[in-house]
Amino acid sequence: MSFIQQLRARWQSADSLVCVGLDPEPAKFPARFADDADAVFAFCRDIADATAEYACAFKPQIAHFAALGAEDALMRLIAHLHVAHPGVPVILDSKRGDIGSTAQHYAAEAFDRYGADAVTANPYLGRDSVQPFLDRADRGVVVLCRTSNRGAGDLQDLSIDGRPLYQHVAEKVAREWNGHGNCALVVGATWPQQLREVRAIVGDVPFLVPGVGAQGGDAAAVVGNAKTADGTGLMVSSSRAILYASSGADYAEAAARAARALRDEINAHR
Amino acid sequence: MSFIQQLRARWQSADSLVCVGLDPEPAKFPARFADDADAVFAFCRDIADATAEYACAFKPQIAHFAALGAEDALMRLIAHLHVAHPGVPVILDSKRGDIGSTAQHYAAEAFDRYGADAVTANPYLGRDSVQPFLDRADRGVVVLCRTSNRGAGDLQDLSIDGRPLYQHVAEKVAREWNGHGNCALVVGATWPQQLREVRAIVGDVPFLVPGVGAQGGDAAAVVGNAKTADGTGLMVSSSRAILYASSGADYAEAAARAARALRDEINAHR
Repeated sequence: MSFIQQLRARWQSADSLVCVGLDPEPAKFPARFADDADAVFAFCRDIADATAEYACAFKPQIAHFAALGAEDALMRLIAHLHVAHPGVPVILDSKRGDIGSTAQHYAAEAFDRYGADAVTANPYLGRDSVQPFLDRADRGVVVLCRTSNRGAGDLQDLSIDGRPLYQHVAEKVAREWNGHGNCALVVGATWPQQLREVRAIVGDVPFLVPGVGAQGGDAAAVVGNAKTADGTGLMVSSSRAILYASSGADYAEAAARAARALRDEINAHR
Repeated sequence: MSFIQQLRARWQSADSLVCVGLDPEPAKFPARFADDADAVFAFCRDIADATAEYACAFKPQIAHFAALGAEDALMRLIAHLHVAHPGVPVILDSKRGDIGSTAQHYAAEAFDRYGADAVTANPYLGRDSVQPFLDRADRGVVVLCRTSNRGAGDLQDLSIDGRPLYQHVAEKVAREWNGHGNCALVVGATWPQQLREVRAIVGDVPFLVPGVGAQGGDAAAVVGNAKTADGTGLMVSSSRAILYASSGADYAEAAARAARALRDEINAHR
């Protein structure tokens, strides 16, 4: 089953649009991990196991592993997710982008080395830089469109023929890059009107939506502006608010409660 | 000494504008590495040692290591470069870009884990995504402006107020992001007129110029259009043409000859 098929099936079976972000920061781990040499893996595994029932996808963020030299933990984590939670797709959040020959190596990194079902990708270098990802028809390519950070508008909002750059990216992805039907878009939660505009451009291309919670985005506004006709189309990503919901011994239960609460809040508006 | 100071000193002392790219591809290694469990490190080390005298910088490309799970080889390679070739700055070519909190982790990866003197960065997410790199005033930040690949124009050439996006990026970097004077720009060799236009915008901000050789760029045109008033300002990057100049036992000598020939060709036009 392709990434997109897996995602659509999971939206139905889990009745959830929540994407659980796995961004390990050892300084925030509960005390019980203080002496655990394998803390990065063990903490992420515990969070994933506790929240899987509420997750339409998992999204490990690779910088958090790379800064720690924890590539091995990331590999074992993704392998664990596939075995323990089959049917929940794994998106490697790495926002790669390079010229074609090098992009081949990034595709090998994400899909062959780590076994991710999908990867995030940066469009600035153009289509040929994304092509090695697109060519893997069974995998997903989640292209940055309008991000949730403060400086996102520096480039993404620049106006070209009366429309911002991010809308041109949305159009290129939906009409030119999505030949295998394996594309999705990153569209941040912080500006609901932008979600609505991009949705109008791209039909039912899935959105990965960061920025709910810690970054101030509102779940109701996201769903109202960005859902597809069948009430899905979204991976609403939450990382810190789930991972670090409690620093006590109840970290896993607290993470599950946070994921369930976000699922319920989203579902109340679908 | 900061990256930019180191680079300016090296341009003078080596009398070279050649940046040696280190993109290991084991399938192209000489036969003698066939049974070497540490081939990735050993091959890159040999090439670097043979070409250092003609290099103003080294540029390991991280995807080539990551696809092989060779992070340890990359760490040891950069450590070797610092010890064996002090004064030759090392640019980690990773083209990272993410929201601010994650970008902190990418800065830790490049500068603390790997000890790189500079890093390449993607501007699509805006200034705050680059800020954690910019804040390290002693390190360099080489921002993608106009790249050398076929699809580069998909986004970079879109016209905003009558000027292509890449020129807006050049202007932002030179006027807004370069407060610490630690920025450089990636401007590809394939379109000399673009090098000239960007040079006119950014003064003496250094350029990392890929695309000479394998990608068809012409060294004379690069120098003529992009050098600064003192005949420097450029890191003309060559990877495959140096690394794989010979697949025989003379691979190191052949690499040195290729690096020297590029240096001489460039210097003939300075």
